[in-house]
Amino acid sequence: MKARVTVTLKNGVLDPQGKAIEGALSSLDFSGINEVRQGKVFDVDLENTNKNEAEKQLETMCEKLLANTVIEDYSFEWINS
Amino acid sequence: MKARVTVTLKNGVLDPQGKAIEGALSSLDFSGINEVRQGKVFDVDLENTNKNEAEKQLETMCEKLLANTVIEDYSFEWINS
Repeated sequence: MKARVTVTLKNGVLDPQGKAIEGALSSLDFSGINEVRQGKVFDVDLENTNKNEAEKQLETMCEKLLANTVIEDYSFEWINS
Repeated sequence: MKARVTVTLKNGVLDPQGKAIEGALSSLDFSGINEVRQGKVFDVDLENTNKNEAEKQLETMCEKLLANTVIEDYSFEWINS
């Protein structure tokens, strides 16, 4: 089973990388951009075919390694492959 | 309008960062992981309220700055906020 885990910064956490992208977009003459925030995405391919078990496994992975839950939120969705 | 742009490596492109995460997950005793691939996500808040125009603007942004189209694929979806 394939899942896509998305990790984004929580609201209020400063995102210098996003600000740099905003700056780069303005210097490329893109206008009307209010905000850019950057996050990470992980495509995880699991052997487990039991959806409930796989979800629990993914949640533990996010808590332990993929996301820093002090400053980041995570979510995941299943991908049909 | 808010959009979420997801940039992932094309199939066949080596992903050492993903491999490192696989290794880290194994050393944390997670088993049954076939593959991990890492990508990037950008949450872009645009002033433009015309969906067609905003989509064109986003596509140009991806081609010019957000994605390296030689090795990366991009996709985007609208987020209700």
